Amino acid sequence: MARSGGAAGQGRRVAGVLAPALTPFGADLAPDPRRFVRHCRWLLDHGCAALAPFGTTSEANSLSAGEREALLDALLAEGLPAERLMPGTGCCALPDTVRLTAHAVRRGCAGVLMLPPFYYKGVSDDGLFRAFAEVIERVGDDRLRVYLYHIPPVAQVGIGPALVERLLRAYPGAIAGMKDSSGDLANTRTMLERFGRDGFDVFVGSERFLLENLRGGGVGCITATANVNAPAIARLFEGWRDADADRLQEELNGVRGLLEGLPVIAALKAIVAEETGDAGWATVRPPLVPLGDDRRRGLLSALRARGFGMPGLRS
Amino acid sequence: MARSGGAAGQGRRVAGVLAPALTPFGADLAPDPRRFVRHCRWLLDHGCAALAPFGTTSEANSLSAGEREALLDALLAEGLPAERLMPGTGCCALPDTVRLTAHAVRRGCAGVLMLPPFYYKGVSDDGLFRAFAEVIERVGDDRLRVYLYHIPPVAQVGIGPALVERLLRAYPGAIAGMKDSSGDLANTRTMLERFGRDGFDVFVGSERFLLENLRGGGVGCITATANVNAPAIARLFEGWRDADADRLQEELNGVRGLLEGLPVIAALKAIVAEETGDAGWATVRPPLVPLGDDRRRGLLSALRARGFGMPGLRS
Repeated sequence: MARSGGAAGQGRRVAGVLAPALTPFGADLAPDPRRFVRHCRWLLDHGCAALAPFGTTSEANSLSAGEREALLDALLAEGLPAERLMPGTGCCALPDTVRLTAHAVRRGCAGVLMLPPFYYKGVSDDGLFRAFAEVIERVGDDRLRVYLYHIPPVAQVGIGPALVERLLRAYPGAIAGMKDSSGDLANTRTMLERFGRDGFDVFVGSERFLLENLRGGGVGCITATANVNAPAIARLFEGWRDADADRLQEELNGVRGLLEGLPVIAALKAIVAEETGDAGWATVRPPLVPLGDDRRRGLLSALRARGFGMPGLRS
Repeated sequence: MARSGGAAGQGRRVAGVLAPALTPFGADLAPDPRRFVRHCRWLLDHGCAALAPFGTTSEANSLSAGEREALLDALLAEGLPAERLMPGTGCCALPDTVRLTAHAVRRGCAGVLMLPPFYYKGVSDDGLFRAFAEVIERVGDDRLRVYLYHIPPVAQVGIGPALVERLLRAYPGAIAGMKDSSGDLANTRTMLERFGRDGFDVFVGSERFLLENLRGGGVGCITATANVNAPAIARLFEGWRDADADRLQEELNGVRGLLEGLPVIAALKAIVAEETGDAGWATVRPPLVPLGDDRRRGLLSALRARGFGMPGLRS
C-alpha cells in the first residue's frame, strides 16, 4: 500500500485509502482518546493504508492545538505507526500551524495535510505562498512532507495550479502532494497532468473519483466515508486495473449516495454509534448537531438493506 | 461616551466609536506589544470610546490564543482601562473561545466581540445557538457581556435575527449586542427594530452607516478606519443630532472611499507607518501581503490632499 518516494527520494510515500478519522467526544464534549485509538486501529486493520486524523471530517477545526497534539500522542502511545499517519495541521494562525506541523514531524508522521489559512478571503497567491513558505521554513526539517489541502467548498480559500507550481519549485522536497476536495474532476486532472510526474501525489477527497484518479496517475483518496466503508473502498484501490473496477466504483457510489443530503459528520458518527453499540459516539461538537432520529433511522435501515456492516467493531 | 446598562442592569455599557486595533508585528512576524500599546493609547486619547482589539482588522485570526492573551495583558499592564476594551474572542474551536472569553472577563473587560465558529459552513441555528450557549455556560460569569460579531462577507457564517432572539431569551444578561459588519443597512434596521429596546446594543461595522445607525437607535460603530481616522468619526458620534451631521457623514465617507478597492488592513498599516515614521508598522502576517509601492504612494498622496493627519503620533 505504499510506493517509492518522489522528488524527495527518501522513505516511502503514502498511497491508497486514507480516513480522516472521526473524533469521538465524551458527554462533556472533551475528546475521548480511548474510543479514538480503537476506531483508528480498526481503520488501519480494515483497509486504510493510513489515516489523516484532524481533517474536516474529524471536526479538527473545532479542536484546540493542544487537543490535537494530545490525540496524536495517544495514537502513538498505543502503538499506531507514525508512518501511517498524515495529521491535519493547517490552522488560521501561523504559530498554530507551525506548532502542529513541527509536532507531527518530530513524531515521525508520514506527512501532514495542510489547509491554507482560511479566515481572510480573497487573499492573493503571494500571501498564500508566503503562508506555506513560512511554515516550511520555520519547521525547518527535511523529513517534512506537506500535502496541500484544497477544499474550496468549506475553506473558501483554495490552492490553484499557479500556487502549486510555485511551491513545488521552491520546496521540491517538502511539497509532497494534494488532497483535492474540490469535487471537480477537471481540477484533479489539471493537478495530475501538470505535477503528477514531479512526485506530487494527488489524493481525491471522495471515493466517487477514486477510479478516475488512479487511472490518471493519482495515488488514492482521503475520504470521510472511509470511516465506515474502508474495506470496500480498499478493494477498489487494490483492484482498480481489474475488469470489474467500474462495477466496484458503482457499488461505492451507491453507499456514498445514502449519505448525500445528510450532514456527513453527524451521519458517520451515527453509523459508528450503531455499529459499535456505543451511543456516545454520536456526540458532535458545536456548531455541528447530531443527526435527528428520523434521518438516523432512515440511513441505518438503508444501509442494512445493502448488507452494510463494520466487521469486528462491536466489543 | 457610555450609557446606562441594558437588561443586565449593572455597570455601564460601551457606546461610541471603537477601533479594532491593528496588531503590529516585528520583522520576525511576532506581535510587538510596545508598538501595540502605543497605538491603542493614541486611539483612546483621540476619539475612541473603547477598543475592540483582536477583530478582523487586527489580524486576530492570524494570532494564536496565547498571543492574544499576552497582548491583552500588555495593554492592561501599561494601564489601559479594561472597561474600555472589548476584545475579540470567537475562534473555530470551542475551547479556544472559552479560554479567551474567560480571560477577558477575569481581566474586567467591558465585553467580548464573538465570531461564530466559522470553519464549517451551512451550519444550523441550532448548532450556532449551542456554540454560543456552551461558551456562556462554561465561562459561567455574570460579568460576561457578549457582542455577537456578524460578518458574513468574511466569516461566511452569519448570525440572523432568529438566532439573536433565541440567545437573548436564554441569556438576557450575557447577550449585550452586535457588531453588524454585513454592510447591509436593512439587516442593521431589523436588529435595531427587533432587539434595540431589549438592551441589545447595535454597532455598525463601518462608519459609513454610523449616522443611520444612531438615528435608528444604535450605539456606535466598530470600524477598521477608526485606526487612522478616529477623531473625525468621533466628531460625528458626538454631534449626530446637530445640523451638520449629514455633512460630517459625507466627509467620513470621502476618507473611507480612498481605502475602497484596497486591501484594508495593509492600507491602514501603511498609513500608520507613514504617520509614525516607523516603516516596520507596514508588516502584516501571511496570508496578507503589504500594500505595493504604487498603491501606497497613491493612497498617501490622496490623504495628504485632503489634509489628513494623525496628530501626536510621530515620536
